Amino acid sequence: MKMPEFNFSAWMHQGLAQVEQGLARWVGEAAPTALRDAMRYAVLDGGKRLRPLLVLAAAQAAAQADDKSLNEAYAIRAACAVELIHAYSLVHDDMPCMDNDLLRRGKPTVHVQFGEAMALLAGDALQALAFELLTPEGDDALAGVQARLCRALAVAAGGQGMAGGQAIDLTSVGKALSEDQLKRMHEAKTGALLKASVHMGWLSQDPAPDQAGWPQLERYGHAVGLAFQVVDDILDVTADSATLGKTAGKDAQDNKPTYVSILGLEASRAYAGQLRDQALSALAESHLPDVQALRELALMVVDRQH
Amino acid sequence: MKMPEFNFSAWMHQGLAQVEQGLARWVGEAAPTALRDAMRYAVLDGGKRLRPLLVLAAAQAAAQADDKSLNEAYAIRAACAVELIHAYSLVHDDMPCMDNDLLRRGKPTVHVQFGEAMALLAGDALQALAFELLTPEGDDALAGVQARLCRALAVAAGGQGMAGGQAIDLTSVGKALSEDQLKRMHEAKTGALLKASVHMGWLSQDPAPDQAGWPQLERYGHAVGLAFQVVDDILDVTADSATLGKTAGKDAQDNKPTYVSILGLEASRAYAGQLRDQALSALAESHLPDVQALRELALMVVDRQH
Repeated sequence: MKMPEFNFSAWMHQGLAQVEQGLARWVGEAAPTALRDAMRYAVLDGGKRLRPLLVLAAAQAAAQADDKSLNEAYAIRAACAVELIHAYSLVHDDMPCMDNDLLRRGKPTVHVQFGEAMALLAGDALQALAFELLTPEGDDALAGVQARLCRALAVAAGGQGMAGGQAIDLTSVGKALSEDQLKRMHEAKTGALLKASVHMGWLSQDPAPDQAGWPQLERYGHAVGLAFQVVDDILDVTADSATLGKTAGKDAQDNKPTYVSILGLEASRAYAGQLRDQALSALAESHLPDVQALRELALMVVDRQH
Repeated sequence: MKMPEFNFSAWMHQGLAQVEQGLARWVGEAAPTALRDAMRYAVLDGGKRLRPLLVLAAAQAAAQADDKSLNEAYAIRAACAVELIHAYSLVHDDMPCMDNDLLRRGKPTVHVQFGEAMALLAGDALQALAFELLTPEGDDALAGVQARLCRALAVAAGGQGMAGGQAIDLTSVGKALSEDQLKRMHEAKTGALLKASVHMGWLSQDPAPDQAGWPQLERYGHAVGLAFQVVDDILDVTADSATLGKTAGKDAQDNKPTYVSILGLEASRAYAGQLRDQALSALAESHLPDVQALRELALMVVDRQH
């Protein structure tokens, strides 16, 4: 039987609707009003939701690999949990003691809107909520899935992942980094969570973590994670603030090392293209039957204008 | 056979040694140097470790209830995880945008020592590490324990627990709270994590969450959690900074509602005594064979001088 043609736009539309519905339902649900408002402001109605889409696409690939029907509930929980970690990191990043950003997704940042103390707490509560979403009660048969998802997310978010990369970033301002050092910083700072998105999609479907297809998907996740950052650095110099929804030219202004500052603009563009090709090759080599969404997401990451 | 007499001091000594060893091994292990230093400074060499001791004591009660040998590994992981959440909350609480405290455990606070940005990241990374500790790889048989521990900790730390209580605290400065409102704030702000310590000790031994003895232990945890805060409020006005290891008289200075400001000093002392008695009654009613450590901890919480 011929596979029906894949409609990425329809797939993305449906996935985004599920993620937005989950976030709208869960974020701040049990929090006091003031905290709830700040948490929801930070998460809802904005964002490309790239990480959740990677989770859903990888979940689909994993489910098909195992010839099972998709466990949609855990795919969506994992997708929302990753987005909460991403959202909290933006809230804390934007604070005056970090990047001191006033604009995010075209709106005032959380600390501008709610004050610094509430922004701090909202970020903290969003991180805790991510782990709560991954461990719903009364689902003992899927405790293995819950535990593996928590572990993957904790490692990607913590000292050897996102927070660690931000610490390297912080201590690198004004320093000359080599391309290798820059790569290691970004592998942790943004790469770890993007890679974890692919991993968590995979784990949400309860295949053994080392099942056939995973090593290739892991390479895919790594390449997409790095490509995302290279493109981010390119856009910081080529796009304007209105298109980005955040302050453009911030990296140069803050004297931060970027791919553009180290490799130059053209070489950065070429590098992003190479990483995209690596990601696509990895998918082809995985021999997984259903990787069209992952494929389209890799293209989207590299070709995006904001 | 007569039970050997319980030596609380020896029990505590051994428990503290295990917790310190766990923390020393795990905190900042995989983080870049600058972040690692801030994380370890925040956690090691200080603190009463009340929460970890509650975890260990409840684990012991749970193991004996089920007539099993103690699963020490998970009791210690749970004990360290709770302490990491507590430690991160202190780091963030002390920051200028929150309490702006310069002194903690007799030392400069983390942001004074490492800068605000690194303090923010260290707190974030400590929270992630807590969930990482609860989900070690290659322990699939205990996935249920891992998942339940993650859930208990996430709920206690997040918007309906600690972070939520802090948000209420923040929006209550300068306001006249009723005793009931104050109680609800503290049940979330400090009570949730203390209660979760007892809960996580219980869950670490894999008894069914609703097994006989738990409803009484839950009441114990609730009473101890509230007693802790009442005593904290008393000490804020009766002890000096050197004894407390933090700035005394801060609550009054910050115009924060406390038990002392609402009930007065003597009534607060009487209330702390009532809560202690409630905790001890709950233990007696649990009919659990081994609650001596929990009993001593309740006494310690109320009789402490700092």
